[in-house]
Amino acid sequence: MLPFDILEYQKRLKETKKRMADKGIEVLLVTDPANMNYLSGYDAWSFYVHQMLIIIDEEPQPIWIGRYLDANGAKETTWIYEENVIPYPDYYVQSTTLHPMDFIGDILTEIGHGNRSIGVEMDNYYFSAKAYERLKTKLPNATFKDGDLLVNYVRLIKSDQEIEYMKRAAKIAEQAMYKGIESIQAGNRECDTAAQIYYHMLSGTEEYGGDYPAIVPLLPSGERTSIPHLTWTDRKFQEGDAVIIELAGCYKRYHVPIARTVTIGNPSDRLQQITPIVVDGINEVLHQTKPGMTCGEVERIWRESIKKRGYEKEARLGYSIGLNYPPDWGEHTASLRKDDDTVLKPNMTFHFIPALWFDNYGIEISESFRITENGCETFTNYPRDLIIQPPFRMNKQGGKIS
Amino acid sequence: MLPFDILEYQKRLKETKKRMADKGIEVLLVTDPANMNYLSGYDAWSFYVHQMLIIIDEEPQPIWIGRYLDANGAKETTWIYEENVIPYPDYYVQSTTLHPMDFIGDILTEIGHGNRSIGVEMDNYYFSAKAYERLKTKLPNATFKDGDLLVNYVRLIKSDQEIEYMKRAAKIAEQAMYKGIESIQAGNRECDTAAQIYYHMLSGTEEYGGDYPAIVPLLPSGERTSIPHLTWTDRKFQEGDAVIIELAGCYKRYHVPIARTVTIGNPSDRLQQITPIVVDGINEVLHQTKPGMTCGEVERIWRESIKKRGYEKEARLGYSIGLNYPPDWGEHTASLRKDDDTVLKPNMTFHFIPALWFDNYGIEISESFRITENGCETFTNYPRDLIIQPPFRMNKQGGKIS
Repeated sequence: MLPFDILEYQKRLKETKKRMADKGIEVLLVTDPANMNYLSGYDAWSFYVHQMLIIIDEEPQPIWIGRYLDANGAKETTWIYEENVIPYPDYYVQSTTLHPMDFIGDILTEIGHGNRSIGVEMDNYYFSAKAYERLKTKLPNATFKDGDLLVNYVRLIKSDQEIEYMKRAAKIAEQAMYKGIESIQAGNRECDTAAQIYYHMLSGTEEYGGDYPAIVPLLPSGERTSIPHLTWTDRKFQEGDAVIIELAGCYKRYHVPIARTVTIGNPSDRLQQITPIVVDGINEVLHQTKPGMTCGEVERIWRESIKKRGYEKEARLGYSIGLNYPPDWGEHTASLRKDDDTVLKPNMTFHFIPALWFDNYGIEISESFRITENGCETFTNYPRDLIIQPPFRMNKQGGKIS
Repeated sequence: MLPFDILEYQKRLKETKKRMADKGIEVLLVTDPANMNYLSGYDAWSFYVHQMLIIIDEEPQPIWIGRYLDANGAKETTWIYEENVIPYPDYYVQSTTLHPMDFIGDILTEIGHGNRSIGVEMDNYYFSAKAYERLKTKLPNATFKDGDLLVNYVRLIKSDQEIEYMKRAAKIAEQAMYKGIESIQAGNRECDTAAQIYYHMLSGTEEYGGDYPAIVPLLPSGERTSIPHLTWTDRKFQEGDAVIIELAGCYKRYHVPIARTVTIGNPSDRLQQITPIVVDGINEVLHQTKPGMTCGEVERIWRESIKKRGYEKEARLGYSIGLNYPPDWGEHTASLRKDDDTVLKPNMTFHFIPALWFDNYGIEISESFRITENGCETFTNYPRDLIIQPPFRMNKQGGKIS
């Protein structure tokens, strides 16, 4: 039932311990749900309560600690022995007096690790300020170290099995994009397009279904295309609208995002003008990107490409992708941005989204790609262009012509 | 465009400031996306980067601080004046050296509030341990106080407009549940049911569409019904399966959850035995619950009801619901559990989910309800029973009979 061979989990754990040793961390508390899944297989929507894996340098298995009613899920979805699954009672959940970290601190003391060098994921959504404070109070003799992103960096280079899952996610992404765009017609509502996209993201293909993405489809239309992170509304599309769709296909929690910009009817002059600049820039980047370059060098190709045509962009161009949970499908490690010195290696995977936003419009055309042995290749195969919808024009009598 | 009148936002802000004063908090940093929305209207999927509202005791408006490319969203979706929207540059995003809290600390100093009593949402997903550490370093003369759940408690009693939105969410929930259950047939996959549910959650009704729920539909089947927080897989339903669906309809970020248990064909003896116990317990609670009682007293009605029949349940029975964002639709305030002394008042709203889980099966039948002037009423109107699917039996010749 595990999505990966146990040997693959053990390899990941070994690499994690190596990095722990490099940082002087003896015990690592893993609270990021993606990192928990990566090391153990654990997969459930239980991350809204405090939970973690404890990785101890000399122990062969992680310890899972979470809410008691999630313990069966840990037994079901991980390679962890039952005796390493430690549930805390329900009265710790969202209590005004008790905190799960009190319980966890006591366990750490009890098993003899309360006074060691303990790494915590300092900037993770699922390790709150209070969690840290309570843990420090419980474990006055521990030395706390910042273990943030330690496991995320292990995730940076994907295995062949992970790439295979991402290829499946890509097929799902293509299909969801196709069906979403098909529903973008004057008079239809944004929410109906979101519904179409979700339907196809989850039903997937006949061979495999889809998983929920860590970010919902982003779907601004009209002037709201200047605002990248808006979700859908009940707004009806109008003739002449531009619409941006950013979505990810997801398979076994592995994501492949893609973004496209669509117009209903003829695109505005400004979109017609900017599109080839964006597409040429993307093509240049995809043509030149290869192992050995840094992320910063990838950004420079793009920057110089659009600069020739008179444009600039401040935001980063992309980021490492893969296994994830809400609220983000980005891995928070390598970014395609100026000054990121990460050296590209085969099987690193990125969402390259060199979007441009202006005061009352924007354009997003993106590609997710994998670094190969001597270049890079995109995961999805979707027309890399502004997409005009519906895909036919009317003749003067109002009849469809192709 | 705002979902509520500006006067309603101002009333919420006033109540927030009153509670700040009670706690000796002069400046409150609001990082919970639901609290940000509640006070300002802000609505975008941007909470995966650090952002906040700053509420200052003597200032008439919140200040929004977030990533620069989300600033247009703050201008579009809130009642905040443009000069109170302060963007931070993109190089603060997921940087290995800079942190958005450095920027925010500097702003607080610059506007003269760096040395005041500052409340922070200590146990919120979106206020990490590192955020707190960096803020403390930047503002050595501030006094930090725990402002966790301060705004959540303001949210506890809903306005009539909020209740109206929840009634719309309830209609969407009913429809999604109906369509989801309809798709539960031997040979269909869990992911196809999830796809159906999502389609109808988002397309909503002709009058209004649906929003994304803060938790995805939970959909364990077969023996996995003993594990409440599992999401769907590619597993094909089989004759004799039990399936649990827990979902929420969502409208303008307001949630109404509902759970039902379904069997394909005749239910097992154990499900047939436990169902009337659960349903009777729910009916007793709904019949007796009224303003003036405490949450703990509601729990006792249930506990005594099932105890008569020989059952016990450890987990809490439910929690306050309303406006929310991933990863939780619960408000983290009042819980229907032993020792919760919250006194029920009209327009408090709860998800009452007295589920029972055993070693290899479980049952979930839930209702979301509102406290009325003299009792309570459910939001959804859905058969409160174990649901047998398909909704007909075969005669001996294999033909359908109703």
